[in-house]
Amino acid sequence: MPQLSSQHLLGIKDLTRADIALIMSTTAEFMQVLQRPIKKVPSLRDKTIANLFFENSTRTRLSFELAEKRLSADLINFSASGSSLSKGETLLDTVNNILAMKVDMIVLRHSSPGTGLFLAKHLPRFRHSAHARIINAGDGTHEHPTQALLDAFSIQKALGTVEGKRIALVGDILHSRVALSNILLLKKMGAEVQVCAPASLLPKNISNLGIKVSHSLDLTLEQADAINLLRIQEERLKVQHFPGNYEYHRMFGLNLERWENAKNKPLILHPGPVNRGVEIDGKLADGPDSIILDQVQHGVAVRMAVLYLLGQTVN
Amino acid sequence: MPQLSSQHLLGIKDLTRADIALIMSTTAEFMQVLQRPIKKVPSLRDKTIANLFFENSTRTRLSFELAEKRLSADLINFSASGSSLSKGETLLDTVNNILAMKVDMIVLRHSSPGTGLFLAKHLPRFRHSAHARIINAGDGTHEHPTQALLDAFSIQKALGTVEGKRIALVGDILHSRVALSNILLLKKMGAEVQVCAPASLLPKNISNLGIKVSHSLDLTLEQADAINLLRIQEERLKVQHFPGNYEYHRMFGLNLERWENAKNKPLILHPGPVNRGVEIDGKLADGPDSIILDQVQHGVAVRMAVLYLLGQTVN
Amino acid sequence: MPQLSSQHLLGIKDLTRADIALIMSTTAEFMQVLQRPIKKVPSLRDKTIANLFFENSTRTRLSFELAEKRLSADLINFSASGSSLSKGETLLDTVNNILAMKVDMIVLRHSSPGTGLFLAKHLPRFRHSAHARIINAGDGTHEHPTQALLDAFSIQKALGTVEGKRIALVGDILHSRVALSNILLLKKMGAEVQVCAPASLLPKNISNLGIKVSHSLDLTLEQADAINLLRIQEERLKVQHFPGNYEYHRMFGLNLERWENAKNKPLILHPGPVNRGVEIDGKLADGPDSIILDQVQHGVAVRMAVLYLLGQTVN
Repeated sequence: MPQLSSQHLLGIKDLTRADIALIMSTTAEFMQVLQRPIKKVPSLRDKTIANLFFENSTRTRLSFELAEKRLSADLINFSASGSSLSKGETLLDTVNNILAMKVDMIVLRHSSPGTGLFLAKHLPRFRHSAHARIINAGDGTHEHPTQALLDAFSIQKALGTVEGKRIALVGDILHSRVALSNILLLKKMGAEVQVCAPASLLPKNISNLGIKVSHSLDLTLEQADAINLLRIQEERLKVQHFPGNYEYHRMFGLNLERWENAKNKPLILHPGPVNRGVEIDGKLADGPDSIILDQVQHGVAVRMAVLYLLGQTVN
Repeated sequence: MPQLSSQHLLGIKDLTRADIALIMSTTAEFMQVLQRPIKKVPSLRDKTIANLFFENSTRTRLSFELAEKRLSADLINFSASGSSLSKGETLLDTVNNILAMKVDMIVLRHSSPGTGLFLAKHLPRFRHSAHARIINAGDGTHEHPTQALLDAFSIQKALGTVEGKRIALVGDILHSRVALSNILLLKKMGAEVQVCAPASLLPKNISNLGIKVSHSLDLTLEQADAINLLRIQEERLKVQHFPGNYEYHRMFGLNLERWENAKNKPLILHPGPVNRGVEIDGKLADGPDSIILDQVQHGVAVRMAVLYLLGQTVN
Repeated sequence: MPQLSSQHLLGIKDLTRADIALIMSTTAEFMQVLQRPIKKVPSLRDKTIANLFFENSTRTRLSFELAEKRLSADLINFSASGSSLSKGETLLDTVNNILAMKVDMIVLRHSSPGTGLFLAKHLPRFRHSAHARIINAGDGTHEHPTQALLDAFSIQKALGTVEGKRIALVGDILHSRVALSNILLLKKMGAEVQVCAPASLLPKNISNLGIKVSHSLDLTLEQADAINLLRIQEERLKVQHFPGNYEYHRMFGLNLERWENAKNKPLILHPGPVNRGVEIDGKLADGPDSIILDQVQHGVAVRMAVLYLLGQTVN
């Protein structure tokens, strides 16, 4: 049976091209399962998965939860509020405790970059935890690999392939784990990647990643086969990086006027949740060029694929 | 197979008499299931249900959850606190996202009247959501149809029928979704309905609904086959509508003295949670004329019936 | 089939020696189940269990939840925040309501000592609740019987037996339900029990329980086959009972220097969550003499045993 090259999914940077191809083809199989009346498969019937969300994320949690249930896994949910962490326990102790209860995999959302890697390094020292598989469901501003995988799967499904396609990421590149994971993945898959953002929302040295940089959404629209409109995360933007939502929408938002004037109309993606009237006009979000809700459906299939591929190797 | 006339259960006002009869007979069948050692049936084994509680309601949520589990459905729980809503997402986007994950039905509790109807109107525009069934689990001060259905089922089970019975709703009619749903349902089922409350807790024009109005609980007791003591919802009564709990208990509460002096002793219902010593004396709540805890049990069966009847039509 | 002598597990003080032996042997059987690839057994497939946590406890809740799932029970979770309790409902009404939904067992965590006993006395008055089994998952500073059972099982597994062993409880005896349950259980199992703590963290008349009292951890180490390092519960210590964590670690904490100088090295237990650098140095917590994470694994098996033994008698 084909396997991933790594025991964990910590970030896109650890994935080989063969890994990516395997995840894509497995996702396509699970997409077929999701169209059937009976959406459950017994693949992980004997596995227990803990969803450890040290940071709130309703949609990612629900997506993983549904993926786990459809794989027939047993699951337990843990959220930071009201947990032992408030009693001064270390993260490693919390995770070791949960794994000692005969848990096989953890899906981890944490606000600190590198949390998954930290655990992957330290868990093998512990007899009860050495077997565990870790899936990074977002670690601070670092990576969010399953989001990038579902975005890529959605583009591939809509355009036939990712290779050679011109794909633009628009918006808050600086704070976005989705942006970093997308850039790494799309480049590995052979796409031509561009970022489009105000200078204040771009990391320094961004062009070192081998991507194009644009400050004009109109120009970006002309050159793209697909655009991924990143969320303006007001809850992360502690300092103002741009004058306001109105100005952002005029300059970097996909507004109706801009779309109607554009000669080229690329595929529209958004990782959600959407700020209607900021990143995108509501009519365009709901329109025929948007695949925003398809992305959500593909998300369940991608997570089923990753959980299945890692979970089948636990014993 | 008999079906309801509507795809959703938004309120009692949409139910035909045939719908009501079908729900009542299906509930009776599920009540038999609940008496068996094995309380599970495979009826919704292939369906996924999302419980979307934008307002807290422990007992209603647990009742739906148990109903869903006993129908073998898969379920996911969503509560507003810590959700994407706090990230500025619209309700429609939140619900569309959840439905795009291949969810078949939503059980919706929301503080705004008409939320279910709003979704029922807009969801069909979206390819991933057009199939969804919606069950209103309480929308503000508007309707709470499964509560009314379980109340009516409880009366029917205790008195043999609802038709022709004199049934009184006592207390906070003004703010109560339970009151409105009960009035609509009991009248459709042929009961003679009376409300008994201080004038400050009655809507204007209440008599337009074709019901009797009383301001004396003693008189109401004499004339009723069953009384449903509505909860004084202190959390909703922002302005004082009566002097205090002590005065309420004396005038509109079912206190021991009043009960002992009453010549006619009707069946006692209460939708819960009970404020002991306010709407009813604790001894009477626990006494032989009260069917308060039977109502709770019937609630699981009524919800199984509604979920089953709507869920079997999703494909 | 062998049964426990009581319908509930409210505290260690109600258990006979035969009960304890039955729980220990049943736990050993479930430990074998937990080593298998398929960790599920159908034992409680027809039972519904409600986890009522009126006080937060992530690890105890997760442990019970996994135990219930591996017994194939249906379960519902209730936590106090956002519950009907905030609407003025009594505890007895809340529990009666949940049991009326055809729930068979409740796992109860509450901040008030004796809550389980209170319910055990009053529930039989109610037709829908008379059958219920109650498991105390911690009632204030009173008892935490499954924790004591898992501690004893862990000692028995590591040392072959509890009988005749010298076992010391170190730390906050005064506020610890774990301490009381441990003392009662270990004495019933024939161990020689010692407590070691600053005088301010010992109940008056502690020696009436038939145990030795020490104020020197060095002396205790010399005399013990196993030591159980109780957690300093800063969240419960509203008044300062000792100068500070640093002083505590020097005098009553298992620090590296003390351990290296000790001639006798007993087995190390800790009920968790661990305050590293307070009750114990982190290296010792992770070292070969510590069975802290084994305790966690045994906890799932002990809870499976108790749930199974009580649950099989419900009908």
